[in-house]
Amino acid sequence: MMNKPYQTTSSQIVWSCPWYRVRQDQIITPNGRPGVYNVIESPPSVWIVPVTPAGEIVLINNYRYTIDQWCWEVPAGSVKPGQTELEAAVCELKEEVGGETDDPLVEIGRFYTANGICNEPGVYYLATNVRLGEPEHEATEVMETHIKPAAEVLHMVHSGQITDGNTALALLLCAEKLRAPG
Amino acid sequence: MMNKPYQTTSSQIVWSCPWYRVRQDQIITPNGRPGVYNVIESPPSVWIVPVTPAGEIVLINNYRYTIDQWCWEVPAGSVKPGQTELEAAVCELKEEVGGETDDPLVEIGRFYTANGICNEPGVYYLATNVRLGEPEHEATEVMETHIKPAAEVLHMVHSGQITDGNTALALLLCAEKLRAPG
Repeated sequence: MMNKPYQTTSSQIVWSCPWYRVRQDQIITPNGRPGVYNVIESPPSVWIVPVTPAGEIVLINNYRYTIDQWCWEVPAGSVKPGQTELEAAVCELKEEVGGETDDPLVEIGRFYTANGICNEPGVYYLATNVRLGEPEHEATEVMETHIKPAAEVLHMVHSGQITDGNTALALLLCAEKLRAPG
Repeated sequence: MMNKPYQTTSSQIVWSCPWYRVRQDQIITPNGRPGVYNVIESPPSVWIVPVTPAGEIVLINNYRYTIDQWCWEVPAGSVKPGQTELEAAVCELKEEVGGETDDPLVEIGRFYTANGICNEPGVYYLATNVRLGEPEHEATEVMETHIKPAAEVLHMVHSGQITDGNTALALLLCAEKLRAPG
């Protein structure tokens, strides 16, 4: 197992927007031939599974422009400059569902979201004893908050009602904790 | 709940490569203001969890250029023009680990992989009674095949050893079947 099987001979940003950018690298492939690798550079994102004191789960029904569909999701967002991942998670919980808790958020996993094309790390949290208040949505966000029993939400993952892969991953990562009583 | 809260006023491809492209839409946001939404357009991808007749799982250790790391993953790939998702899954299983089975592949889930920025659907399969042969790697692929007990692989999801989100999702979607005897 070689440490880095590709060589990078040059690198430039070929497209960018405020949320991510595309870096195009000229490379030498493992078989010695020249090639190109495009890497979408993106800051980390966080996903938070909010659980109420009664053990229910807070979902948002979120319009996603990319696919023109409404999606059941847990609160999520990208880490802003100067924020830690944990700070971003606390902020998104507050902004998207008005959620607050005195419990420390528990990191339940850390995964690259699309390692074939993108360098974005995703960090997944469980937030317990969440109290809900007024959300503080950004102008472009269109979403509604719903509270559902944990068993129903886990069923939604397996039945096709939840179509967001990162929400499904976040929920399955803490499935055993969500099923446990109390 | 409105059906489509954004209006699209124009649309153009602003960047492309052979694997995906960026479509930039001029939009009217729900609060009536003009805005821009960039959508990464990508064909569907498939992930396949290969299980041997002994109930062990076939993983590949895959070098990922985007993050300069070796990643434990299940076989995966994008759906090529003219292929169905199922055909792509059968092909990737054969190409990446030389895997074949007489059992029908079972679809265990269907999720958008990154619905905030991308329209890519992901389809996740379980392949049982997989026999391994010689992989047929593409020139740019650098990977090794490993066979591991199911319990160990599920532990790798929760312990941080598996860092690919889609592999973690695929494994967790069939965790109960993987844990079941026989």
